[in-house]
Amino acid sequence: MLSDIEIASAAKMLPIDQIARSLGVLPEELEPYGRYKAKLAESIYKRLADRENGKLILVTAINPTPAGEGKTTTTVGLGEAMPRIGKKAIIALREPSLGPVFGVKGGAAGGGYSQVVPMEDINLHFTGDMHAITAANNLLCALIDNHIQQGNVLGIDPRRILFKRCLDMNDRALRHTIIGLGGKANGTPREDGFQITVASEVMAILCLAADLPDLKKRLGDILVAYTYAGDPVYCRDLKAEGSMTALLKDAIKPNLIQTLENTPALMHGGPFANIAHGCNSVRATKLALKLADYCITEAGFGSDLGAEKFMDIKCRMAGLAPSAVVLVATIRALKYNGGVAKADLSQENVEALKKGLPNLEKHIENMKKFGVPVVVAINRFGTDTDAEIAVLSEAMEKNGVAFSLCEHFAKGGEGAMDLAEKVVAACEEPSDFHPIYELDRPVEEKIETICREIYGAAGVEYSAAAKKAIKDITALGKGGLPICMAKTQYSLSDNQKLLGRPEGFTIHVGEVRLSAGAGFIVVQTGDIMTMPGLPKVPAANQIDVDEDGQILGLF
Amino acid sequence: MLSDIEIASAAKMLPIDQIARSLGVLPEELEPYGRYKAKLAESIYKRLADRENGKLILVTAINPTPAGEGKTTTTVGLGEAMPRIGKKAIIALREPSLGPVFGVKGGAAGGGYSQVVPMEDINLHFTGDMHAITAANNLLCALIDNHIQQGNVLGIDPRRILFKRCLDMNDRALRHTIIGLGGKANGTPREDGFQITVASEVMAILCLAADLPDLKKRLGDILVAYTYAGDPVYCRDLKAEGSMTALLKDAIKPNLIQTLENTPALMHGGPFANIAHGCNSVRATKLALKLADYCITEAGFGSDLGAEKFMDIKCRMAGLAPSAVVLVATIRALKYNGGVAKADLSQENVEALKKGLPNLEKHIENMKKFGVPVVVAINRFGTDTDAEIAVLSEAMEKNGVAFSLCEHFAKGGEGAMDLAEKVVAACEEPSDFHPIYELDRPVEEKIETICREIYGAAGVEYSAAAKKAIKDITALGKGGLPICMAKTQYSLSDNQKLLGRPEGFTIHVGEVRLSAGAGFIVVQTGDIMTMPGLPKVPAANQIDVDEDGQILGLF
Repeated sequence: MLSDIEIASAAKMLPIDQIARSLGVLPEELEPYGRYKAKLAESIYKRLADRENGKLILVTAINPTPAGEGKTTTTVGLGEAMPRIGKKAIIALREPSLGPVFGVKGGAAGGGYSQVVPMEDINLHFTGDMHAITAANNLLCALIDNHIQQGNVLGIDPRRILFKRCLDMNDRALRHTIIGLGGKANGTPREDGFQITVASEVMAILCLAADLPDLKKRLGDILVAYTYAGDPVYCRDLKAEGSMTALLKDAIKPNLIQTLENTPALMHGGPFANIAHGCNSVRATKLALKLADYCITEAGFGSDLGAEKFMDIKCRMAGLAPSAVVLVATIRALKYNGGVAKADLSQENVEALKKGLPNLEKHIENMKKFGVPVVVAINRFGTDTDAEIAVLSEAMEKNGVAFSLCEHFAKGGEGAMDLAEKVVAACEEPSDFHPIYELDRPVEEKIETICREIYGAAGVEYSAAAKKAIKDITALGKGGLPICMAKTQYSLSDNQKLLGRPEGFTIHVGEVRLSAGAGFIVVQTGDIMTMPGLPKVPAANQIDVDEDGQILGLF
Repeated sequence: MLSDIEIASAAKMLPIDQIARSLGVLPEELEPYGRYKAKLAESIYKRLADRENGKLILVTAINPTPAGEGKTTTTVGLGEAMPRIGKKAIIALREPSLGPVFGVKGGAAGGGYSQVVPMEDINLHFTGDMHAITAANNLLCALIDNHIQQGNVLGIDPRRILFKRCLDMNDRALRHTIIGLGGKANGTPREDGFQITVASEVMAILCLAADLPDLKKRLGDILVAYTYAGDPVYCRDLKAEGSMTALLKDAIKPNLIQTLENTPALMHGGPFANIAHGCNSVRATKLALKLADYCITEAGFGSDLGAEKFMDIKCRMAGLAPSAVVLVATIRALKYNGGVAKADLSQENVEALKKGLPNLEKHIENMKKFGVPVVVAINRFGTDTDAEIAVLSEAMEKNGVAFSLCEHFAKGGEGAMDLAEKVVAACEEPSDFHPIYELDRPVEEKIETICREIYGAAGVEYSAAAKKAIKDITALGKGGLPICMAKTQYSLSDNQKLLGRPEGFTIHVGEVRLSAGAGFIVVQTGDIMTMPGLPKVPAANQIDVDEDGQILGLF
C-alpha cells in the first residue's frame, strides 16, 4: 500500500468553491485560502440560524495504545461512507498542531484512503489559526511583563503569574525558563515557561466561544496572576482582550476542506485533550449541523478523557446533544490491553484479546451512561484472524451493542458503509442525552463522580495544594464550572501502566487550576506535560522540499 | 481629515483576481488569501523569464526624525500617480511586523490617501509569512537544544550558540533569558534570548533567496554555533534546512495587494534595516520588474542604511540596477535636523531649515555616488510656509537635483503626478549604477569605504572582539561577503544625537557577526536592539473589535 503522503498527493481534490457549493454555502460566504482551503464568513451563521440541525455523531475510542486505533481515520471513513448510502454528511475535525509534525508523530489528518486534504497544508500552517493563537497568547504575556516594567500599578506578584507564553513547537528547553534578565531596561527577572500552543487557554477559549463578543468576554476572563495582596488579576485588567480578539478575528471562522473522496470537512480548533477539553470548535460543530444531515466529529484520546469532556463540557456549554457515539477499537489494541507486547501484536492471541476486551466494555458502559446509543467500529488489520474476530463478535453481541468491521483505511468510504448503516440506525434509536454530573454540586463531588463513574476508581485523594485551590476557586465564585480532567490517556486510571479495566484504584489529584476564560476547572492527576520534546531522531530530519516545491518525508 | 483606518475602511477595493488580471497574471498563477490578498505561484517566474524588465525606482529618505518623513506613503503615492500620467506601474513594499502594531507605532502600510489595503489584514497576520519565518527559526532552535539533549554528537558548546529564538512581538522580557532549567529531562541550562522575527537571519534569507533551492542552500549555510573545539556548526549539520524550507514554501511566494486607487502592489519580506538589509524580497522585486514598466520599491530607514544596503547587498546579489532614486524629506524633518524641537516644528523657521538642509544634501551626494539619477520628493505639510519652500527650492536648484512638492498624503495619486513626471524623466537619464565597494577588498577596507563615503566619517575604530571576529570570518573563507552595517538610523554618524551633517566623527565598531546564510557580514556600531519593548501605554490597550468583526483603534 502507498504511504499517506503518496495517497494524499495523488488525490483528485475538487476546488474548494465546488465543495462549498455542494453544502449550499453562498459565494460571498466563502473566504478562500489558496485553491483547496477556505474560511466561512460570519454571515453564514445568521443566514442559517433557523435551519433545522442535523444529527451529531461523536467518534471516540478505547484507551490509546502504541498499536494505533485510527479514530480520525474512522471519522473520515464514516464521513466518506455516508454519501455512498445516500446520506448528506459533513465531518468536523480538530486542527493538528505543528509541533508534533517535526517530532515523532508526523501528520494528523487521518490515514490511508481515509484522509482529509490538502494534507501538507493541514499539517503545516493551514489557515494560520495556530499562529494567531500563539500571537494572542504571547501578546497577553508581553503586556503582563510590560505592566510590571512600567510601574506595576496593579501590584502583580511576579512569583504568582499563572499565564505562560507558548509556541507551536516541540521544545523541551523552553519548559522552565527565567526571563527578564539583563538589568533594569530588560524587565523583571522571574520564572516562566512555554507551553505548546494547543495547551493554551486561548485555544480552549477559541473552541468554546459562541461568537466574537463571547470570545472577547472569555479572553477578558482569563485569570493571569495574583497581586501581592492575593487578589486575582484578569486579562481585562490589562486591557488585552480587545487586541487579542483582533488577532483572532479570522481564526474564529471555521475552515472548510475535503476528504480524499470529496466529503466536506470543517477542521477548526484543536485544544489539548488533557489540560483542555480536546474537541474541535463549538462554532464549527454548530455550523456543520446546519450544513448537513449528519455531522461526524471526534474528541481527543480515549472516551474517558475526550468523550467525557465532549459531553460534560462542550455539549453542555453549547446546548448540543449527540445522537450516537462511535467507539473505535482494533483487535491489536485490545490484545495490547491484554498484555501483548507491541512487537508481537501480529500473532494470533485469542486469550490476550479476551483479557483486553474489558477495556472496550468499560468504554461502552461509560458512553451508555450519557444516554446515547453506541456503535463499536473495529478498524480491521490484515493480521486479525477469524478466531479473534469471532471472539470479538460474540462479546459485542453479549453486550448488546451494534458493531462493524471496517476497512476504510484500505478502501476509503466503501470500507465503512456497514458502519454508516449502523450509525444511521443508531441515530434513530431513542436517546436521552445528559451529562454525568450536575454543575451545581461541590467541586469535589463533581470530580468524584467522573472518577467513580467513568474511570471506575474506588476513590479520590487530594494533595493539600489541590484542596486549597478548590477552596480558592469556590471563594472566587467559580465553583459552578464544569471539570476538565487532566489524566494519562493510556489507562482508565491515573497510572499509565494499568491497562485493560483496572479496579479498586485511587485517583490522585495533585493540582487544581482555574481556566476562567475557557470556563472550566482543570484537575491534574499526575504530571501533565504541556510542552513536548523532540525525539532522538526527529521527523524534522527527514522532511524536505524538492525543486518543484513538493514536500517530501511528511507522513 | 479622516484617520488612516477610516480612509482604508472606506476604500473601494477591487477583487484581487481583477488586480491580477490587470497585470496579466493567469488565473492558475493566483493563490487567493481571502478576497483581497493573494500569493503568486512559482510557475509565473518561468512563464515571464524572457520578458524585458521594467525600470526599478528606489524610494529612500533622509535620516528619520520624530517628525515623520512618509517614505512608504511616497512610495504608494508615486505608484498611484503613475497610471495618471499613462505609465504602467507596480509597487514593491516590505511586509510590516506584527510586534510594533501593538506598541507605539501602529500599522505600516502608508498613510492618508496613499495606503495599501486591506490595511487591517496587512498589519495583523497578512498571509502568514512572518509566522512561517517564526516557526522555521524556532524549529532550528528546538533542533539545536534537542541535539545537545540527545547526546551532543557534534559537540556543540552551549556557551557559544549564536542562533536565537524569535517572536513577532515587542517583548523586552525575552531579550535575555535562561532556558533548559528543571533538571535532566528538560534540557541543558544555557543563556538565550529572543529577537523580533524581522531581525532573524531567516527573514534576511527569505528576502535574498533567488528561488526555493537557493532558499534551502542559504538556510543550510546559517552558522548556528561553535563546538567545544571551536569549529563552526552550520544549520545543515543539524539536518534542519529541509524542514525549514517546507515551513517556508508558501512564504517565499510574493503577496499581491493593491493601493487605495487600485495600483497593484507586491508586499513581501521585511527584514530589519539595521541588523539586516532592510529591503523587500528579491523575488518580489524581480517579479514586479516583469509585470510592469515601472517598479517602485523602498528600503528601510534613511539612505545611509537602507539605500546603501539596497545597492551594495540586494542589487549586487540579485543582479539588479535601479534607474532612479527618490529621496523623501519634509520641511519639518529638515527643521528638526536644524535643531528645532518636535513641538515647535509647526512654526516657520527658515534659519533652522537652512541649518538642516545639509542632511538632505549629503543624502543626495551619497545617492549620486552609486551612479543613479536622484529626484527629491518633499512631502508637503499644511504648516510649510512659502518662505521655507523658497529656501528649499533654491537649495535644490543649486544642487542641480530635480525636486517635487508632493501632496499624495492628502490627495492620493493626484498629489504626486509632478513627482511621477520627474521620476519618469530621471529614468531616461544616463545612469551608471555601481556598488560603492568591491567585494574582493579586505573586510576592514569595505567597512571604511562605507563609513567615509556614505556616513562622512573621519575614521573607524574597532573593538578587540570585532577585530578577532573579522579575522575568524576571513579564516572561514567568508571575507568576500558584502557588509551589512548596523547603525543608529537617526544620524549619519553612530551617535543618534548628531543631527544634520556631522563631520570629523569616528565610527566605533563593537561587534562583527557572520550571517552566512543571508550572505553578509553584520557590523554593529553601538547597541542594536533586536527585540523592542512596549511603551507605558501600548497601542494594544486601544485596539478592539466590534460586534460585526470590524477592528477599531488600529492606526
